[in-house]
Amino acid sequence: MKKLRIFKMLCLVVMMLWLCNARAQNRKEKDLLGEKEIPANAYYGVQTARALENFAISGMPTKFYPDYVKAFAIVKLAAARANAENGRLSQEKLAAIEKACKAVMDGQYHDQFLVDLYQGGAGTSANMNTNEVLANIALELSGHKKGDYHYIEPHDDLNMGQSTNDTYPTTIKVALLLHNDKLITELEALSQSFHKKGDAFKSLLKMGRTEGQDAVPMTLGQEFHAFGNQLDAEIKSLRASETYLCEQNMGATAIGTGITASPGYAEKVAVHLARITGKPFVMSSDLIAATSSMQSYVMYSSALKSLAIALSKISSDLIFLTSGPRTGIFEINLPALQPGSSIMPGKVNPVMPEVMNEVCFKVMGNDVTVSIASHSGLLQLNAYEPVVAVALMESQGLLFKCLPLFRKNCVDGITPNEKVLKRNIEQSVGIVTALNPVLGYEKTTELAKEALQTGKGILELIREKKLLTEDQIKKVMDPAAMTQLK
Amino acid sequence: MKKLRIFKMLCLVVMMLWLCNARAQNRKEKDLLGEKEIPANAYYGVQTARALENFAISGMPTKFYPDYVKAFAIVKLAAARANAENGRLSQEKLAAIEKACKAVMDGQYHDQFLVDLYQGGAGTSANMNTNEVLANIALELSGHKKGDYHYIEPHDDLNMGQSTNDTYPTTIKVALLLHNDKLITELEALSQSFHKKGDAFKSLLKMGRTEGQDAVPMTLGQEFHAFGNQLDAEIKSLRASETYLCEQNMGATAIGTGITASPGYAEKVAVHLARITGKPFVMSSDLIAATSSMQSYVMYSSALKSLAIALSKISSDLIFLTSGPRTGIFEINLPALQPGSSIMPGKVNPVMPEVMNEVCFKVMGNDVTVSIASHSGLLQLNAYEPVVAVALMESQGLLFKCLPLFRKNCVDGITPNEKVLKRNIEQSVGIVTALNPVLGYEKTTELAKEALQTGKGILELIREKKLLTEDQIKKVMDPAAMTQLK
Amino acid sequence: MKKLRIFKMLCLVVMMLWLCNARAQNRKEKDLLGEKEIPANAYYGVQTARALENFAISGMPTKFYPDYVKAFAIVKLAAARANAENGRLSQEKLAAIEKACKAVMDGQYHDQFLVDLYQGGAGTSANMNTNEVLANIALELSGHKKGDYHYIEPHDDLNMGQSTNDTYPTTIKVALLLHNDKLITELEALSQSFHKKGDAFKSLLKMGRTEGQDAVPMTLGQEFHAFGNQLDAEIKSLRASETYLCEQNMGATAIGTGITASPGYAEKVAVHLARITGKPFVMSSDLIAATSSMQSYVMYSSALKSLAIALSKISSDLIFLTSGPRTGIFEINLPALQPGSSIMPGKVNPVMPEVMNEVCFKVMGNDVTVSIASHSGLLQLNAYEPVVAVALMESQGLLFKCLPLFRKNCVDGITPNEKVLKRNIEQSVGIVTALNPVLGYEKTTELAKEALQTGKGILELIREKKLLTEDQIKKVMDPAAMTQLK
Amino acid sequence: MKKLRIFKMLCLVVMMLWLCNARAQNRKEKDLLGEKEIPANAYYGVQTARALENFAISGMPTKFYPDYVKAFAIVKLAAARANAENGRLSQEKLAAIEKACKAVMDGQYHDQFLVDLYQGGAGTSANMNTNEVLANIALELSGHKKGDYHYIEPHDDLNMGQSTNDTYPTTIKVALLLHNDKLITELEALSQSFHKKGDAFKSLLKMGRTEGQDAVPMTLGQEFHAFGNQLDAEIKSLRASETYLCEQNMGATAIGTGITASPGYAEKVAVHLARITGKPFVMSSDLIAATSSMQSYVMYSSALKSLAIALSKISSDLIFLTSGPRTGIFEINLPALQPGSSIMPGKVNPVMPEVMNEVCFKVMGNDVTVSIASHSGLLQLNAYEPVVAVALMESQGLLFKCLPLFRKNCVDGITPNEKVLKRNIEQSVGIVTALNPVLGYEKTTELAKEALQTGKGILELIREKKLLTEDQIKKVMDPAAMTQLK
Repeated sequence: MKKLRIFKMLCLVVMMLWLCNARAQNRKEKDLLGEKEIPANAYYGVQTARALENFAISGMPTKFYPDYVKAFAIVKLAAARANAENGRLSQEKLAAIEKACKAVMDGQYHDQFLVDLYQGGAGTSANMNTNEVLANIALELSGHKKGDYHYIEPHDDLNMGQSTNDTYPTTIKVALLLHNDKLITELEALSQSFHKKGDAFKSLLKMGRTEGQDAVPMTLGQEFHAFGNQLDAEIKSLRASETYLCEQNMGATAIGTGITASPGYAEKVAVHLARITGKPFVMSSDLIAATSSMQSYVMYSSALKSLAIALSKISSDLIFLTSGPRTGIFEINLPALQPGSSIMPGKVNPVMPEVMNEVCFKVMGNDVTVSIASHSGLLQLNAYEPVVAVALMESQGLLFKCLPLFRKNCVDGITPNEKVLKRNIEQSVGIVTALNPVLGYEKTTELAKEALQTGKGILELIREKKLLTEDQIKKVMDPAAMTQLK
Repeated sequence: MKKLRIFKMLCLVVMMLWLCNARAQNRKEKDLLGEKEIPANAYYGVQTARALENFAISGMPTKFYPDYVKAFAIVKLAAARANAENGRLSQEKLAAIEKACKAVMDGQYHDQFLVDLYQGGAGTSANMNTNEVLANIALELSGHKKGDYHYIEPHDDLNMGQSTNDTYPTTIKVALLLHNDKLITELEALSQSFHKKGDAFKSLLKMGRTEGQDAVPMTLGQEFHAFGNQLDAEIKSLRASETYLCEQNMGATAIGTGITASPGYAEKVAVHLARITGKPFVMSSDLIAATSSMQSYVMYSSALKSLAIALSKISSDLIFLTSGPRTGIFEINLPALQPGSSIMPGKVNPVMPEVMNEVCFKVMGNDVTVSIASHSGLLQLNAYEPVVAVALMESQGLLFKCLPLFRKNCVDGITPNEKVLKRNIEQSVGIVTALNPVLGYEKTTELAKEALQTGKGILELIREKKLLTEDQIKKVMDPAAMTQLK
Repeated sequence: MKKLRIFKMLCLVVMMLWLCNARAQNRKEKDLLGEKEIPANAYYGVQTARALENFAISGMPTKFYPDYVKAFAIVKLAAARANAENGRLSQEKLAAIEKACKAVMDGQYHDQFLVDLYQGGAGTSANMNTNEVLANIALELSGHKKGDYHYIEPHDDLNMGQSTNDTYPTTIKVALLLHNDKLITELEALSQSFHKKGDAFKSLLKMGRTEGQDAVPMTLGQEFHAFGNQLDAEIKSLRASETYLCEQNMGATAIGTGITASPGYAEKVAVHLARITGKPFVMSSDLIAATSSMQSYVMYSSALKSLAIALSKISSDLIFLTSGPRTGIFEINLPALQPGSSIMPGKVNPVMPEVMNEVCFKVMGNDVTVSIASHSGLLQLNAYEPVVAVALMESQGLLFKCLPLFRKNCVDGITPNEKVLKRNIEQSVGIVTALNPVLGYEKTTELAKEALQTGKGILELIREKKLLTEDQIKKVMDPAAMTQLK
Repeated sequence: MKKLRIFKMLCLVVMMLWLCNARAQNRKEKDLLGEKEIPANAYYGVQTARALENFAISGMPTKFYPDYVKAFAIVKLAAARANAENGRLSQEKLAAIEKACKAVMDGQYHDQFLVDLYQGGAGTSANMNTNEVLANIALELSGHKKGDYHYIEPHDDLNMGQSTNDTYPTTIKVALLLHNDKLITELEALSQSFHKKGDAFKSLLKMGRTEGQDAVPMTLGQEFHAFGNQLDAEIKSLRASETYLCEQNMGATAIGTGITASPGYAEKVAVHLARITGKPFVMSSDLIAATSSMQSYVMYSSALKSLAIALSKISSDLIFLTSGPRTGIFEINLPALQPGSSIMPGKVNPVMPEVMNEVCFKVMGNDVTVSIASHSGLLQLNAYEPVVAVALMESQGLLFKCLPLFRKNCVDGITPNEKVLKRNIEQSVGIVTALNPVLGYEKTTELAKEALQTGKGILELIREKKLLTEDQIKKVMDPAAMTQLK
């Protein structure tokens, strides 16, 4: 054991020396504000270096969301292809840039995407981080040295015909779409789990409840299918909201007038974006409106919020239904995942619906962040896109990470407490509702009142009072029949 | 003058006597909780009377929103027709109920819809208010006396095959749709106003701004068309969100199992709803899910919020652009509507965009109310639908009342300050951006820097340094060309 | 009956003629924008008339909140007294203005405060409405005719040394304080009701629940005292937040520099405000900061939000505890206020906690409105104060109207279901927690597990296993002892 | 270079082997749900291991916030001391636990606090993670092996007289207080920077603006002092809200009845907490109310939100004031931190106020998350405390990280554009306001109107019309005098 430790220390020392050595060999880069040293092994350049100093805020760099990094590469690739088609970018440069973009799309070099998710400048730093890293990867992969920008230049080649104001929002949209696929995959799986339970529980009668009060009979299967169907509706909304995300403003450049972009370029980028992502990207019909409009994010955020509301309601229902075991509703059991309490032995808590709720509350708060940021735009741009991106990606990420845990550790293991369900149906007064069409609301109200006051059952009273024949009773009061739409 | 006053007092005294007399002639009605006196001339009944005592909260009754009252009548009419087709409601009763519903749809008897917009019981009071009033109107119009419920009964006839839990949410949806038409009409008019200004200002060059900083040239017309186009996009969203509102749960009754409803009734109500309203109403595919789901409201509220965000951004832009007159941006003039200050003579403030913003902020807050209410549902029902209805109708109402004032009193009267626009273009450094494709980002950056430091113009510097020929300059630096997408 | 109707019609006709006549005799007034006709009997003037045209938005005029109207009069009275002390306003004018202000403070002339609650111009219209009405009342009460402004002038006398930018926010603060007293009175009454129940239920043992799961014993009295104590804490916060409202900026005039105000005036107004209202008003130490700062509203809104959160949690707890009657928790009964359902006979719903919740959700949404409006200020002023006022007064009004209904119709009538409470304690496994200090967490965990699996009671198991003597059991397991802090 | 790489690879291989070896030597632990393998070198135990599987959600473990980890140790230390004083914990055990807690308070072992910030179970996992880690550190530091729990046991010793339901919320409060100190330190520094600028700019006259329109004169120094004073007011609120955080519920254990805690323990913990932290911690007067109450968090979150609103308003003001350089307000310069645009050469954007705004929007959204989570409590506990903790700590962290960057990179470097300021004062019509007391509102209104229409200056007109003598003019119209409160 001791030897190992000594050896480990030795290894660490050697590695640190090696790292120091590497760091010593800096290169110099300059921009409008002057010259700056860049670590020799860094693929990023001077503007990233400035941003790292300006924005050390959240501790979460771009690479925190790998799909975000990939989205940057996708957008740059589409732009490069369109520029090459327009003859502005040489085939040689395109080849190098393609390689660089694809490497990043494959998950490489992500450790170079370092600027904080929070940043001023409407995303300029993230865009420049991308331009610099891709330029240096392209340089290296085509046999040049990092920093030899006369071969491939971050602005002139990687940002050709572009502005942060079109590439950055487009990148966010691509990233949101990549995340949305993951989210929907998880939602579909969860919905299926609910539907499976719906099938399994289809013959288990129970009392439905409205306003917490005993209402009329239904089946436990119907309750779980309803959960599934509500999620299906949310999936539909999330998919539908992709339309907003697929309308983008590449070609707009600075403010939508397309300054520095070449004729036809805008249309071509849209085609390439669609080809690379498989999503129906289109160019906005008014690039000026599109450059400052936040509607895409607002509407997508709304769909996430709607999902959060549905999931939160379902989670709270599960917590209600499993309450007990001895003094609650206790119609269902959730799987026991961990001892529920540091003080109360034997207690097992509904931890998965609880954490699902927590995620939903964060998503609902993030929607407000998106709203406030979105209304705060000024004239031709909204400078607060970075926080919108943070809020949305955080919401997506929390959801698609939490959903499979909720499904596997909770929903899939739910079992019914059949005795409780049955007892509830038998004791209920609510079946009296089925008599309305036969006896009228006033009469049945009296019956219900009497049942509640005397503690007697409804059928008992009907028979006592000879209000219905046994045949009528059988037909009208069959609890199973009550639960199916005629 | 004095005589008139005496006469007025006399009239008031007589009327009060008359009112007292009228009140003396009460009728009695009873329900589960016992008997209660009802004013003889009231069309409402015992349950409304109870609700008036229980919910004196906001001072705003159902009738505050006439479309809401109409929506109740529409839903009851559709249900009555479906029940009659199913043979459960006699043609005679249907005829009476039809008359009653149509009278209310025509704007009559609205003073009888008195229960507070805020109410517990998931809307039961509003539903019963409707059942009672329509029953009594139907009674009276078919020659009976108010309260003679053995001819037409509020529960058994007006609520036949229904529950508050299906009629109330469906009514809200109908009301929201009626309001949405009004809202869209106003939005279309406003959008047209912006587009008209866009056409009128199409040849006025100006500097575009991003992050408040001078960016690149555009036209004032483009700016106003962008406002119009952003509104057009919001109109599209609002229309699209009608799909959510048109999916309803009539036939679900209490919890979605359709208890007390007759076979085929659910499908028939949908058809009648669609026929009466002209909107593509459909029955939800899972009535149990639909009865507790709040997605329709959440998504429609989101569309309202998105609109509010767009309108707020536009309003703030107008406030920015008209700032001045001597120390601000002052590119445009808003019409002077009222002296702007109680202390500063001559000051005229942008009051219409300001009040538009206020409305938008209330709409954004209401969206949060809708979210919180919607996630708070429990099992088969969300009891908080009334506050969701209040929030949404308030948002719609504020918007469709404010929009025409904003349009007529502000947007339609906007005029440009051409001198300011021109001076801004001439002084700007931002036109340097157009040189990027010709000279590269690094070179142009230096030019810009020099211009800013020396106070010289960009063209001046280019000529000094002979960077471009006059022909090149003409082609590249034409400000007009810079503003059009190639 | 018929005769009466005819007579009523006659009366109406006469009154309408009289009204028309009155209206015919208009007077003319003018301002910066030109001349305008004003109804002869109107106390308001030209600027109010303009505002009535510009802002027909919410249908709710200033007079919707009587305390708001009173607050305007209070502020004007304080200013007039300070001006008189400074020798700028004659004693004669002061006397007339005093009479006018006091009449309004007494509830008269409120029908003249007509401008919409929503308005641009940072409240200029509401301020001018006040200046005009008070001037004309003062004129009339001192023997002049309405409109004879050379005796008393709306700007020069009623607005002397003032600006909308100091009087309007100060008025809002006074109004909020008047409302806050009403709110706290109702909260104290509700808290007392909870504490009374707490005393009444103090010997009723029940199972406490955490995360919906059976936890450890407590008394029903402790639960209700906790409700009361939570409200007491909210009352304390509301009172504490008055400090924010009592810091005001009278004397700031337009932007805080006090232009047009006389030396020492600012300090004097604060003294008069304090004297009139009985609240410790002070002058802000930085009138420029105070004129644009929204902190007072934000912090007071936060206190309202905090109250709403507490009330909502309590309401939801009551709904949970009364759920049933046969398939829920059903530990307490809420009074039956109205038939709970239009379809389910005998159902009685928790309508009062439900509507309380609705009010809370609106308050929570309004807090977001306040936040958005408050961050949208620009330089020396926040023009969105009117919507902040609307949101806050709406929240207060809904709360102080709903609270007494909630108390009288619900809380005061709550009764316990002792059988249920007792059964829950007897069946519970949770009492095992009390054994931790004696047996250790691991051992007690095994006991709890066995109890849950076998359905046996904890004491039964302890005796079977002879883990404790009867004396020890008595001492440790006494449920009553478990519920009191040692 | 190549050699180094090979060596590096070698090192990595060796280290991995070593790690694998280490991992091979697991120990076994068990709980209510069964046995589980724990890495031999881990200080955490079985319940942490379960939590790591259940809650892999945000990718952010407890240790993401070092002050949070420290707070856990502080609370456990206070509890251990109180237990020792009560004679329940031996001095030997106390000594070991003290060492462990202090090590963690000093920043050691933080890598063992691994459970996700998001978790169900109301924080049970975070509490058990702490109990397990501290127990094992204590074991090791007192010469035992990890896992030898018969010496020191996570539940029985580290959780003695405690429950997650009192230690977890108390820990959050301690953590928030630690963070709050950091936040206030940064705010004070920022406020001082504003005040320094206020002093530096005190003689620079400028036009004040309301509603974006020219108002009356002030100094640039007054504007910056107002920024400082607004922050000072927020600092005061943040400090005041510590009162809420200092009221805690240690001794409440599971639900507030103090089950398993010894007599007098609750009071003693409060004393120790106060002693360790230097904050005036007190025991809540109703531990049952305190255990479910979220008021502390809600009120503290509100103070953060209020701060965010103030900071956002200030940031937007700076963006407005620096807009330009050629077509905006341009009264001040912000330091150039990075090239402002990837496309527009020479453009420098207000990136620091922008990112400050982004942080503020996130804080405002987080306040909504806190509200929703807080109203969702159920009976004796609110299970959603973890997301409340996440939201609040995120808000604090973003703020105290962003504030020094905003200060150093922006505020400290602000310079005035004196020419612009002077030109604005000279051209302004707003100085006319100073004439109100001399000439009356009507007359001055006409003057202002004429000035605006003719383009003439106010003084020019006064002299033309001989409205005032030169002496009067000097006295009344002195711009400097206009800016100081009399």
